[in-house]
Amino acid sequence: MYKQLRQQINKIIDLTDEEFDYFTTFAKLKKLRRKELVLTEGEVCRHAYFVKTGCLRYFYTVQGEQHTGQFFFESAWYADYESFLSGQPSRQNIEALENTEIIMIPKTALEKLYQEVPKFEKFGRLMAEKAFMGLRQRTEMITNQSPEERYLNLIKQRPKLIERIPQHYIASYLGVKPQSLSRIRKRIIQNP
Amino acid sequence: MYKQLRQQINKIIDLTDEEFDYFTTFAKLKKLRRKELVLTEGEVCRHAYFVKTGCLRYFYTVQGEQHTGQFFFESAWYADYESFLSGQPSRQNIEALENTEIIMIPKTALEKLYQEVPKFEKFGRLMAEKAFMGLRQRTEMITNQSPEERYLNLIKQRPKLIERIPQHYIASYLGVKPQSLSRIRKRIIQNP
Repeated sequence: MYKQLRQQINKIIDLTDEEFDYFTTFAKLKKLRRKELVLTEGEVCRHAYFVKTGCLRYFYTVQGEQHTGQFFFESAWYADYESFLSGQPSRQNIEALENTEIIMIPKTALEKLYQEVPKFEKFGRLMAEKAFMGLRQRTEMITNQSPEERYLNLIKQRPKLIERIPQHYIASYLGVKPQSLSRIRKRIIQNP
Repeated sequence: MYKQLRQQINKIIDLTDEEFDYFTTFAKLKKLRRKELVLTEGEVCRHAYFVKTGCLRYFYTVQGEQHTGQFFFESAWYADYESFLSGQPSRQNIEALENTEIIMIPKTALEKLYQEVPKFEKFGRLMAEKAFMGLRQRTEMITNQSPEERYLNLIKQRPKLIERIPQHYIASYLGVKPQSLSRIRKRIIQNP
């Protein structure tokens, strides 16, 4: 049941079978249907989510409109790290874009693991560093790139995302209206 | 020489004298005069800086203008974490605002310490988490707060900064022109 999780964690830290089994005593498997939320704005994010199958997306609601932050596929981790760390209510919504299976690890479990199995500190450090870089790149994209640059980078860096995610979510992620994305796509096809 | 550094690290991890002495074999003390840069944009940030005395500021240059990111006083750590982690050239400049003494810890030393003294993983994790929260709050301030709200929060959260830092740097940090900051200050004094 946790083979994929083990493979992903093994890339970061070497756990004995015993340590990994202990880790999984805290894990909870959850099935989400398409469009189901695993975190709703206003709630505190008390878990880290590991995507077993399917896809998660997080978004903000700004004046009734959804602003997509990021997509996460198989073997990716996600949490609203700000709420997770601070214990403050989240402003994010985290939703399954497809039928999705996730593994949830409570923050309290991670804190316990940091104490009892210090190897997990490395796991925590690398997660925090990754969260930092993700936020940095996202901020950079929004502040310094034109919508067309954003789209070209997405095609280059994450081509599979383009195939898998409906257009209007990609538009929302790039910070443009769906019609603008259509125009950008047309321009690129005409002048590749 | 490293007493203050030890105190600050002790708040995070329990090091034996031996472990701390080993840590300091990698440390380098550096004196900076007022306005001296310790990192210039285009360079890779290969050190974490601990402020022993004085004050550091980081800023970006945008079309010839300086945009101040943050100020760091005694016992604070700073690095351009993005450049530090990625090994890519920094876009930041890190400058002493007063005569300042810093302790520099090379990234290579930290990597060695993570391997040899695993306790440092916790240090690294907390640093990364702090960097994440700092970036999040900074982005939040710039995107969602009016200049007046920014200034009021600054007075509330870091009153000593207002006394110590020249006005034009505070204006640059808040993302407003010095004249606008004067107007904001006047309004606040009239309607406290």
